[in-house]
Amino acid sequence: MNPAPVISLLTDFGLRDGYVGAMHGVIYGICPQTKIVDLSHSIAPQDIRAAAFLLSAHAAYFPAGTVHVAVIDPGVGSVRRIILAHDADNFYLAPDNGLLSFLEEKTGVTFYFANNPDYWLPDLSNTFHGRDIFAPLAAHLANGVAIEAMFQPVRDIVRLPAMRPQIQHDEIIGRIVYADHFGNLITNIGADDLPENLQDWHVRIGEIDLGPLVSHYSAKKKGKLLATVGSFGFIEIAVNRGSAAKRLADYRDLEVKFLPHRNATR
Amino acid sequence: MNPAPVISLLTDFGLRDGYVGAMHGVIYGICPQTKIVDLSHSIAPQDIRAAAFLLSAHAAYFPAGTVHVAVIDPGVGSVRRIILAHDADNFYLAPDNGLLSFLEEKTGVTFYFANNPDYWLPDLSNTFHGRDIFAPLAAHLANGVAIEAMFQPVRDIVRLPAMRPQIQHDEIIGRIVYADHFGNLITNIGADDLPENLQDWHVRIGEIDLGPLVSHYSAKKKGKLLATVGSFGFIEIAVNRGSAAKRLADYRDLEVKFLPHRNATR
Amino acid sequence: MNPAPVISLLTDFGLRDGYVGAMHGVIYGICPQTKIVDLSHSIAPQDIRAAAFLLSAHAAYFPAGTVHVAVIDPGVGSVRRIILAHDADNFYLAPDNGLLSFLEEKTGVTFYFANNPDYWLPDLSNTFHGRDIFAPLAAHLANGVAIEAMFQPVRDIVRLPAMRPQIQHDEIIGRIVYADHFGNLITNIGADDLPENLQDWHVRIGEIDLGPLVSHYSAKKKGKLLATVGSFGFIEIAVNRGSAAKRLADYRDLEVKFLPHRNATR
Repeated sequence: MNPAPVISLLTDFGLRDGYVGAMHGVIYGICPQTKIVDLSHSIAPQDIRAAAFLLSAHAAYFPAGTVHVAVIDPGVGSVRRIILAHDADNFYLAPDNGLLSFLEEKTGVTFYFANNPDYWLPDLSNTFHGRDIFAPLAAHLANGVAIEAMFQPVRDIVRLPAMRPQIQHDEIIGRIVYADHFGNLITNIGADDLPENLQDWHVRIGEIDLGPLVSHYSAKKKGKLLATVGSFGFIEIAVNRGSAAKRLADYRDLEVKFLPHRNATR
Repeated sequence: MNPAPVISLLTDFGLRDGYVGAMHGVIYGICPQTKIVDLSHSIAPQDIRAAAFLLSAHAAYFPAGTVHVAVIDPGVGSVRRIILAHDADNFYLAPDNGLLSFLEEKTGVTFYFANNPDYWLPDLSNTFHGRDIFAPLAAHLANGVAIEAMFQPVRDIVRLPAMRPQIQHDEIIGRIVYADHFGNLITNIGADDLPENLQDWHVRIGEIDLGPLVSHYSAKKKGKLLATVGSFGFIEIAVNRGSAAKRLADYRDLEVKFLPHRNATR
Repeated sequence: MNPAPVISLLTDFGLRDGYVGAMHGVIYGICPQTKIVDLSHSIAPQDIRAAAFLLSAHAAYFPAGTVHVAVIDPGVGSVRRIILAHDADNFYLAPDNGLLSFLEEKTGVTFYFANNPDYWLPDLSNTFHGRDIFAPLAAHLANGVAIEAMFQPVRDIVRLPAMRPQIQHDEIIGRIVYADHFGNLITNIGADDLPENLQDWHVRIGEIDLGPLVSHYSAKKKGKLLATVGSFGFIEIAVNRGSAAKRLADYRDLEVKFLPHRNATR
């Protein structure tokens, strides 16, 4: 028996109540040979943006063919659709609430919605589609069931407003989009957004000049604020061996700016 | 090599200290081809009732043949027995402290106790039978070792006092048995306990009339208390996009009543 | 396809941000048939000693051939090396910061450092070597790639100062090295360090005489402090159905002593 594609799970269910375990149970009942990866089950309740950020940041590190399942679903039981996105490499299942809006048709992604209850659990609850619909659909995809048997193409999906930084020739202005559990503050400014002569530019958060980007956390002394390209590929504001989220309690309101050095003190 | 049955683990060990990881290690050493599902390791310390509720609620979603291991074991190291329950579909291992009392002989369940140390780890600790006895027994069961080689039939197991609701022709009285991490309050009133003309009945918790059951959380406005059939198959008291456990801080003391509409205001 | 060795993961990354899931994704991409065990991801940030304690305590319960990966790595991105320790049974990967100093050459362990980026992810981040270096190395080891292809022998590794108890003929003095999530206090006094006539000796923590060792938690009444040989193989100070860490808030400063009974009150 060949190994099946990996299935990754991302929810706001927590690990306390057994909801995630029940999803594992359903998946293994349908596709015993898959491997399940728990990407995170600690998304803040109904925080669709945080889930979208984590999924977009981590998906590239999974093997081709992975079925990513993201269930942050405040509309469960209402008429919202369940969306499948499929590109050359991977599958993504999520409610139609913007969670998958980081994927775009122009990059070769096709969108579908689930329309065939024959592939769901027979006794459907109104409150736990993660177990009753998402888990069996993911397992059937991992088993190689054809998309067309379970889904129907759809043109438009719900999309979150864009969260891109403002990029000008002498200034880049972004903001914090995620605080990780170390207290590192991740911005929406990607490494690719940066100009080439980077050694000449300073980073500021609010009124604080952090100097140029550094290459790693311990490049500054213990306790010092710094900016670096984090493991997500975005600029992060961090404190060496400390928490930037605690140091900058108002980080949600602060702008993060890149400025050429001559302007950094303005 | 065929896949072995799934093994599910339910404990109050937490995930911090590596106790659960050591159980995984022991299991894979004996049965490398099994899949392990962590149902929950966040049961409140020694809360046998909560573990029994979660196991009874989730077990139906696991594949036939699953070996469920539940180690909430305040009596570890004393003379309490280790019980195996076996029905047509599944295996359940737990200490003899009431955790398995939701299973009954009259439904085709047979009970055993572990009597053969040859199938336990050789150097037995007094404090961690999860690793030293439960894990190897589960792995040997998943390997297909005969029950009779490891266990001996037993007639009586420790049983928790029944927690069934009071059901009368014009009133159903239950109570909250579990609060999940969303703050949803799960009652002991099952969907099967309800009368047929449900649209005529109101739900009350304490002095608050919630009106009739609704079909899903978002059927009421954000912040409103509601009653619905939850994903566990029991009546739940919930707040749309909020926490009923926080709203009703004294929920442990409140009765949940179903009443025909004409009586709902009495 | 035969099952590959188990890979165990021990980090301070937490489970919230998907870092651990990304490591799983990388591992399954290289070695689809391995099993991954999450030993713990809740090590206090950068607490190398706690990680070393848990790894040394739990490793013996994993199958032969297991690849243990421990990433508590305050020096990530600086020049610290990545160490492989290999003995007859197992592999251990960790930063060269003392985490593996419980392993010693004289017991047949050989040490190496990672020197071949061909076996790392191609686009290396400066902040997440767990995903970019440790995960692929572990997966290649599980695949059976030769050590020599990826590592080079090394003579000296960073070692933590010894944490052994003082053992004299009429007194053993130790201290607490780990508090588990139940509040059990684990000492550095191993069961093997104890004299034979143990029934004559009393245990003291600070000024409190606990009497002789007991065989299990419930050997004393609910709420009573006790000393027992814990599941880690070390002397633990515990409270039956309670938390010794809460009872003895200053446990980090207290000595734990074994004394022959005639001296126990001095």
